[in-house]
Amino acid sequence: MKLKFSRIGLMGKPNNPEVKSTFHTLIEYLNTLKLSLVVEASCAPLVDDLNIPSAPDDKLASQCDLIIVVGGDGSLLKAARAIVPFGVPVVGVNRGRKGFLTDITPQAVAQELTPILQGNYLEENRFLLESYILRDSKKVYSHIALNDVVLYSGHVARMIEFEAFIDDAFVYRQRSDGLIVSTPTGSTAYALSGGGPIVHPGLEAMVLVPMHPHTLSARPIVVASSVEIRIHITEENQLNPRLSWDGQVHADLNPNDEIIFKRHDKVLKLLHPNNYDYYHTLRGKLGWHI
Amino acid sequence: MKLKFSRIGLMGKPNNPEVKSTFHTLIEYLNTLKLSLVVEASCAPLVDDLNIPSAPDDKLASQCDLIIVVGGDGSLLKAARAIVPFGVPVVGVNRGRKGFLTDITPQAVAQELTPILQGNYLEENRFLLESYILRDSKKVYSHIALNDVVLYSGHVARMIEFEAFIDDAFVYRQRSDGLIVSTPTGSTAYALSGGGPIVHPGLEAMVLVPMHPHTLSARPIVVASSVEIRIHITEENQLNPRLSWDGQVHADLNPNDEIIFKRHDKVLKLLHPNNYDYYHTLRGKLGWHI
Amino acid sequence: MKLKFSRIGLMGKPNNPEVKSTFHTLIEYLNTLKLSLVVEASCAPLVDDLNIPSAPDDKLASQCDLIIVVGGDGSLLKAARAIVPFGVPVVGVNRGRKGFLTDITPQAVAQELTPILQGNYLEENRFLLESYILRDSKKVYSHIALNDVVLYSGHVARMIEFEAFIDDAFVYRQRSDGLIVSTPTGSTAYALSGGGPIVHPGLEAMVLVPMHPHTLSARPIVVASSVEIRIHITEENQLNPRLSWDGQVHADLNPNDEIIFKRHDKVLKLLHPNNYDYYHTLRGKLGWHI
Amino acid sequence: MKLKFSRIGLMGKPNNPEVKSTFHTLIEYLNTLKLSLVVEASCAPLVDDLNIPSAPDDKLASQCDLIIVVGGDGSLLKAARAIVPFGVPVVGVNRGRKGFLTDITPQAVAQELTPILQGNYLEENRFLLESYILRDSKKVYSHIALNDVVLYSGHVARMIEFEAFIDDAFVYRQRSDGLIVSTPTGSTAYALSGGGPIVHPGLEAMVLVPMHPHTLSARPIVVASSVEIRIHITEENQLNPRLSWDGQVHADLNPNDEIIFKRHDKVLKLLHPNNYDYYHTLRGKLGWHI
Repeated sequence: MKLKFSRIGLMGKPNNPEVKSTFHTLIEYLNTLKLSLVVEASCAPLVDDLNIPSAPDDKLASQCDLIIVVGGDGSLLKAARAIVPFGVPVVGVNRGRKGFLTDITPQAVAQELTPILQGNYLEENRFLLESYILRDSKKVYSHIALNDVVLYSGHVARMIEFEAFIDDAFVYRQRSDGLIVSTPTGSTAYALSGGGPIVHPGLEAMVLVPMHPHTLSARPIVVASSVEIRIHITEENQLNPRLSWDGQVHADLNPNDEIIFKRHDKVLKLLHPNNYDYYHTLRGKLGWHI
Repeated sequence: MKLKFSRIGLMGKPNNPEVKSTFHTLIEYLNTLKLSLVVEASCAPLVDDLNIPSAPDDKLASQCDLIIVVGGDGSLLKAARAIVPFGVPVVGVNRGRKGFLTDITPQAVAQELTPILQGNYLEENRFLLESYILRDSKKVYSHIALNDVVLYSGHVARMIEFEAFIDDAFVYRQRSDGLIVSTPTGSTAYALSGGGPIVHPGLEAMVLVPMHPHTLSARPIVVASSVEIRIHITEENQLNPRLSWDGQVHADLNPNDEIIFKRHDKVLKLLHPNNYDYYHTLRGKLGWHI
Repeated sequence: MKLKFSRIGLMGKPNNPEVKSTFHTLIEYLNTLKLSLVVEASCAPLVDDLNIPSAPDDKLASQCDLIIVVGGDGSLLKAARAIVPFGVPVVGVNRGRKGFLTDITPQAVAQELTPILQGNYLEENRFLLESYILRDSKKVYSHIALNDVVLYSGHVARMIEFEAFIDDAFVYRQRSDGLIVSTPTGSTAYALSGGGPIVHPGLEAMVLVPMHPHTLSARPIVVASSVEIRIHITEENQLNPRLSWDGQVHADLNPNDEIIFKRHDKVLKLLHPNNYDYYHTLRGKLGWHI
Repeated sequence: MKLKFSRIGLMGKPNNPEVKSTFHTLIEYLNTLKLSLVVEASCAPLVDDLNIPSAPDDKLASQCDLIIVVGGDGSLLKAARAIVPFGVPVVGVNRGRKGFLTDITPQAVAQELTPILQGNYLEENRFLLESYILRDSKKVYSHIALNDVVLYSGHVARMIEFEAFIDDAFVYRQRSDGLIVSTPTGSTAYALSGGGPIVHPGLEAMVLVPMHPHTLSARPIVVASSVEIRIHITEENQLNPRLSWDGQVHADLNPNDEIIFKRHDKVLKLLHPNNYDYYHTLRGKLGWHI
């Protein structure tokens, strides 16, 4: 069997018995192919084979030509932030229930991975959001997100107030629980529960979804991924709003902070089995059937 | 002039220059009528006339036969919790912009209050929610709310999980940012921004509005005000959800806590000018016009 | 076996092979109980036993003390208009898929009907809407509806314009595709797909749900079932809007027509098996599960 | 004054006194510039000057290098279908209330048109939808639309059923009142009242908005403008659904018809004053202000 990849990185949800079991199956299978393996440090306890080296997540990708993530979509979001700088492709294995991003089932790991390892796969480029905070004209935080960057109050029924600009054009001053800025990938996640539209992952677009806006005519806005979105936290805020990247990295905001959102220049290379069908996944996850 | 009320309590938003100015006008006017006045302690600094006695908010209502609240709807919500136990009627004076509850404008204080003080008014009974937390079968918190009691995560994109029961019948297990349980009075406040319906204040009904629910077919549910709603915080919650009464009183929740919501047995007696028109206020606040 | 009912009327969806088959099972079973039967005329062709008399739908109920309707919720809506004037109770048998109103499954007809026929059932009173058109001060149409009465344009992207009044108070002038006025029973039908809330069938309330309103802040409104809703079709309408009772009876409207909606004074007596659980039905029909 | 355009076509809403008055002002002004004018035939009665030639709408654009449309957005939609084949740019003059497309106010016609006629303007390319019906493999209707093409039932509470495919991938089988397929231009029109997102006109995307869908988890979907959308009207439809281009051209559909929607290859060249600001128009039209 001729393989396209030679050194595989393993990542996943730590401390999870199902992931441990899938790691076991996976390693057994990958060993039969004589593939070189590295495991992400926080997952090392899930691996029995002591010969497999481990590496911290910010080093792992540079040592591999393919990453396999075992877990839910949340695990893949986390992995993406570590992998994207290195341009290494990723495959997601779920824990029994198909995710939007993790579409290989643990029961069929060998069967579904074999063609991918041989180079027969569908490669999707998913773009990420880059978002940073400007405080007194200095960048104080900067992270990337595959799903969304969310500005939020964190205090129920205590609205925050902000102004939004797109390519420096004033869009609105809004009072609400916050704002979700989402990629197409994130459009089926948190943004969807906030009333945002489903955006096909192939579309170069971002969505701004207001959260519980005070103005009832506020609506989600879809803009090109090439624009720069700027949020100004107005002076009036008595609370410190917060910012969240993929619901996993958080920062506190001050009045007069500015937040910049733009398309990150690197993409996530997401590999799917050749029979991958976006709308099939969508129907399954959203329960569309008559 | 024959007056129906003799001892007036003054409440309002403390530390607010507009409220101070309205207090001044109001006191001058009430003095011409020789009415006896008491001011709520936190507002005492807003009153120049040192002869007017003050009382803490939990004592004030028992000393008066009418309360005038100056501020926004939020000030009236706060006042309601202190007043309702004593059954004293309330009039709301806004700070320039009509509220749903505070419908007397400061510019027309004398003109609009005179008929009310003479007994010519429209009295509305607005019911309140009573909500308490059961922890290990003990009541650990109990408060009342005029608008809503909100169960929430406080952590964006970190859903909480709970089960809802109505009169002991299981309704749903839900993963979401939280749940708003609203009175008709609250249906035009936070619940409305979450997609809840407008409920006429005369209807004996409560609304359950899910916040950013994971299940897309979740919808607001309207039930009779006579039911008991019970929420069970499931074991699975990794975060401590919180509970909020009218967005003003807060409590932390633990896994396995139960929250009871039911109609409070006492009502708020809200007085309006005789020409009060609920739908007129609605059109104005929601911007309905062609 | 002691029975509570002695003469059973059979109604259902005509020309339907599944209904025919259920009729067959049902008649066989009811015959073993020596019950007297009458079949609604349009369903007579579904009955093989020529000894069973038939009656037109407006005569049937007066001859029976229980009606069994076989079909979907639509068949029960139709039957309700004929039965309600006579106050005879109704049981609904579905065609394989549980309805909101037809909750006995054809496979379990004997098992689920036996206790009901013996008097062991849960009786619900579902109220109906009565709606009529006033043209030049004359009532030109008047019908009742169990789910909803819908004012609509019938021409896509051609809005109609009307004014709504509740107990003679002006509510709004609206431009939209139309307005759904729904009972609690109808709140899980068409009104739900238009963004209306779920209203518990025990609540004496009606909902007004705007259809594709031009004003984005328009929202569903829930009012007491005791109010009178009046719609005035404004002069400006270039199209003739239409009115529909339960989607089954239709009438054309003219500019300046007025439509009155109010609670009908008679109710539908809907019988359920003793283990009936409204929220269970809701979860099943709306697909609520994690 | 050096002008960029030499022969101006005038179009607009026929039989409208305000349009007549604006035509008068406009012609007077254009005559001072010695511009050659042609009026669209249906508007000829609005023009007093008998020396101005008229032409039918399908001939007009070929004779002009600029078209001025006077009326509402509806008039510009109609004009667009006639103008687009010829690639002639268009300016819209409203009737007192700013439209999304008609942004020159009649009071400022001379002032706002002068720079445009001199070549100082902002040119936007707005793409159109082309949609045709395949019946027994033959194209039976084909039209273009600037806002939207709408599939609809035309019978309230009588759902239609159809299957949607995007680039031949099955998306869903849906029962609903219909489907709106909208351009970014149309996203602030009918699609918005159906819950669709606002799509910036610069984005090459189309939106599919379900109308009152039976499946509550149905959501608007945003896809690239380069895809082909295909709708199959299923056999099960008892009613003949209809298709509407911009709400102005209509066709009846049969079971088994297929409808194709794709981006039209020609665009509308829409000219705006140099200070045109999309978000400013949006805020004004949707009433966004605190």
